[in-house]
Amino acid sequence: MATTLITNIGELVTNDPAREGVLGAIADGALVLEGALVAWVGAAADAPDADERIDLGGRAVLPGFVDSHSHLVFAGDRAPEFAARMAGESYAAGGIRTTVAATRAASDEQLTSQVARLVAEMRRQGTTTVEIKSGYGLTVLDEARSLAVARQFTEETTFLGAHVVPDGTTPEAYVDLVTGPMLAAAAPYARWVDVFCERGAFDGDQARAVLAAGASVGLRGRLHANQLGPGPGVRLAAELGLTAVDHCTYLEPADVDALRDSGTIATLLPGVEFSTRQPYPDARRLLDAGVRVALASDCNPGSCFTRSLPFCIALAVREMGMTPAAAVPAATAMGAAALDRSDVGGLVPGMRADLVVLDAPSHVHLAYRPGVPLVAGVWVAGRPM
Amino acid sequence: MATTLITNIGELVTNDPAREGVLGAIADGALVLEGALVAWVGAAADAPDADERIDLGGRAVLPGFVDSHSHLVFAGDRAPEFAARMAGESYAAGGIRTTVAATRAASDEQLTSQVARLVAEMRRQGTTTVEIKSGYGLTVLDEARSLAVARQFTEETTFLGAHVVPDGTTPEAYVDLVTGPMLAAAAPYARWVDVFCERGAFDGDQARAVLAAGASVGLRGRLHANQLGPGPGVRLAAELGLTAVDHCTYLEPADVDALRDSGTIATLLPGVEFSTRQPYPDARRLLDAGVRVALASDCNPGSCFTRSLPFCIALAVREMGMTPAAAVPAATAMGAAALDRSDVGGLVPGMRADLVVLDAPSHVHLAYRPGVPLVAGVWVAGRPM
Repeated sequence: MATTLITNIGELVTNDPAREGVLGAIADGALVLEGALVAWVGAAADAPDADERIDLGGRAVLPGFVDSHSHLVFAGDRAPEFAARMAGESYAAGGIRTTVAATRAASDEQLTSQVARLVAEMRRQGTTTVEIKSGYGLTVLDEARSLAVARQFTEETTFLGAHVVPDGTTPEAYVDLVTGPMLAAAAPYARWVDVFCERGAFDGDQARAVLAAGASVGLRGRLHANQLGPGPGVRLAAELGLTAVDHCTYLEPADVDALRDSGTIATLLPGVEFSTRQPYPDARRLLDAGVRVALASDCNPGSCFTRSLPFCIALAVREMGMTPAAAVPAATAMGAAALDRSDVGGLVPGMRADLVVLDAPSHVHLAYRPGVPLVAGVWVAGRPM
Repeated sequence: MATTLITNIGELVTNDPAREGVLGAIADGALVLEGALVAWVGAAADAPDADERIDLGGRAVLPGFVDSHSHLVFAGDRAPEFAARMAGESYAAGGIRTTVAATRAASDEQLTSQVARLVAEMRRQGTTTVEIKSGYGLTVLDEARSLAVARQFTEETTFLGAHVVPDGTTPEAYVDLVTGPMLAAAAPYARWVDVFCERGAFDGDQARAVLAAGASVGLRGRLHANQLGPGPGVRLAAELGLTAVDHCTYLEPADVDALRDSGTIATLLPGVEFSTRQPYPDARRLLDAGVRVALASDCNPGSCFTRSLPFCIALAVREMGMTPAAAVPAATAMGAAALDRSDVGGLVPGMRADLVVLDAPSHVHLAYRPGVPLVAGVWVAGRPM
């Protein structure tokens, strides 16, 4: 198979735990790709020959970003709602209903074209693996087709029928629908099952029921929890040994202890707090307690319509007490771990050759130059995009 | 002269005070360019014929951004200092000295190439007019050559010899140098004179002396003031009737009254507060008091290495109580007013045809989709870049 040597890399972030530092960074590094995989990583001076040779002129290379939380299957524009909120209205989860109506009214082709556009935009900013949830259909048909659309773009699809209780039904009846016919229709297209466990959405018992039903058909669990206030979600995630629990803004000491003890990853979504003027989660407290922390975009039309992980990294540094050297692995290696993926999130021989070239000499510039599009190149499975 | 009709504009922001609303926005608008100027603005249905016709498919068009405060003439990389600050060290103005040493050591060609790169990046994000300051030379020769470099890229050049007192001299001796031989060498390349009036830099009397000396050779005054604490700078700016005073974070009631009464524009630079973890200035307080507010980047290697006005707009909305409809004119029309320019900052017949096309249907998306590069096209003086 053809090999490519990428050399003259100012800083090569590997996330390899066998190397020094949390980033496993190599100054003046090189890597060799063979087909879709990383074949060799090391100092440029030691690099082997290859069929093709690319000189990056001192630019930094990072593993492609892994965005483990997004809601891309939707229709409609909620910019006016955003402008109203910024003029003083408070965040209302009910806003989801406007997207539900638009999503149900959209054709499969419209939804597919919207997801394609957003995935392409994400990729231009360095996201090479993305999780995509349903959750704006909320009928058997619309949840299944949302996931069928998502599945065209990623293996990491998540059934979020339990996003909000739609109009015209009761919570009890809706949970029966979600755990029964909706799950049956959605499961063929999903890897994960997720619940918005929050006051005004689904309580701990309902979340437990949805996750158990999902598990019974082979779906792995995730949770939205403790975003708007304290609640049972984070401890439930830890008790069930879920891979990750997302948001984690309002945590009691017992929540932090439970995350540390279970190893469940806390996925923080600072774009949401930016776009809703809510308090940010405290990443520093979690890291200091030994909890594993990931960063994701939560890209959605209501509470956070960014899709830029560089922007989320800059926010994590400004607002959540993370250093750039902590934030970059959170958006790469930890994002991959939050999806239970060992083939992406790092640049180590045998892993998929997903990588980002920055128009900058180091990862620090992602936070040092906020809002500046620094991604100069993106490779997926060994091929430049 | 050849005319171009740009039509099918989802939202056309004109900043025309003769139109309704602070944005003077037209839904489903069109504009005609003739040579370098705007020739006609109105509803697409009423548009006249033109030699060429461009259909924007519902995208929004804004006046090009006017960045009235930047420090682009420098050399060296302060990313490690940024990372250290984010790990807990506090902001030290002394950090400027590392840039001064690197700038003095750089050749004219290196400085020119750095400014060219930054101006090109700014333009890609929609900035069509930029002010550039000296201030990292701090010798007669290095200030003059910094301004000569800047003048290759903009008419809006500012002599900021009074940025910080360099090592090896006294404040008194340095002010004598700035107001004497340094001013004489710099003046041919500068339109403006500026002083960093702040504890640890230059006091009110020194600022007054520098501005008076500048005025005596035809340079108009600007000030950095009240960034790190209360001080005399804002009231001095108002007393002297300066066009604009920049930073304005720490304001006493008398400062706000003085700005309102003088009409001096308060130019806020929220990228600095983002990158230094300082409190943000209160734009809402100023707007409510009737003070005119502009937004600029303050792009510099120490306290703020963003150069994105879309990012600054998003910050102004999140952190400073501005609506998107207030933040967009602050980064366009008010930026132009802060440079005393009537030919840019709006899209009105007779003005220069500098415009930004967004890959979005309205200006709200600049804040609604933070960190996402939304600028799909930029025109300067009637020509697409």
